[in-house]
Amino acid sequence: MDQDTVAKAFVDHYYQTFDSNRAALGRLYQDASMLTFEGAKIQGAPAIVAKLTSLPLQQCAHAISTIDCQPSGPTGGILVFVSGSLQLGGEQHSLKFSQMFHLIPMPQGSFYVLNDIFRLNYA
Amino acid sequence: MDQDTVAKAFVDHYYQTFDSNRAALGRLYQDASMLTFEGAKIQGAPAIVAKLTSLPLQQCAHAISTIDCQPSGPTGGILVFVSGSLQLGGEQHSLKFSQMFHLIPMPQGSFYVLNDIFRLNYA
Repeated sequence: MDQDTVAKAFVDHYYQTFDSNRAALGRLYQDASMLTFEGAKIQGAPAIVAKLTSLPLQQCAHAISTIDCQPSGPTGGILVFVSGSLQLGGEQHSLKFSQMFHLIPMPQGSFYVLNDIFRLNYA
Repeated sequence: MDQDTVAKAFVDHYYQTFDSNRAALGRLYQDASMLTFEGAKIQGAPAIVAKLTSLPLQQCAHAISTIDCQPSGPTGGILVFVSGSLQLGGEQHSLKFSQMFHLIPMPQGSFYVLNDIFRLNYA
């Protein structure tokens, strides 16, 4: 698979999992992984999952607007930059966001998330 | 310097240079560098500078809202995620944007930009 295909498949999988079974996102991170969520830095899969599952979002649905990707260097990593909107259950308006991921290849052919930075786009 | 300090100094330098002498941004890129600007992928310092200097922005001023950074791996690279707004000369309103940079250390102690992804935040 080329990097654009990997990036698109990752993004689809990530947000579908976020919206349906957020605890399962833990499989995508490892001990060295970092999440910066609205400026708060969290390291390691268990702490990242604890943060993501504690967000006050009972029901949410992500809609993706753009996906950009680039190779992060010679070792097969991929940088993925996403923009989109987040519709919260029971609310009319949606929140725009930007998020980046750094995907690192694993020997068995899949990827894990080493870096994850999320920001809402304030109007 | 710690990574937060490097990231802040880089961001200040980058946008001051963009707003005052855009052609000088070329020094920050190398042959392997990539820019994705609103979805258009460009590789190499000369092509990146040609793109940046051809943008229809006679006068512009960037204002930075947030800077997030993380180490991109064990080799000293830094991922920098910026949000801010862009005021164009002669226009009242400003454009919100999000941009990420992947900074790679060089032997002499400075950094170059390997990856650069820019997106306007459409409302």
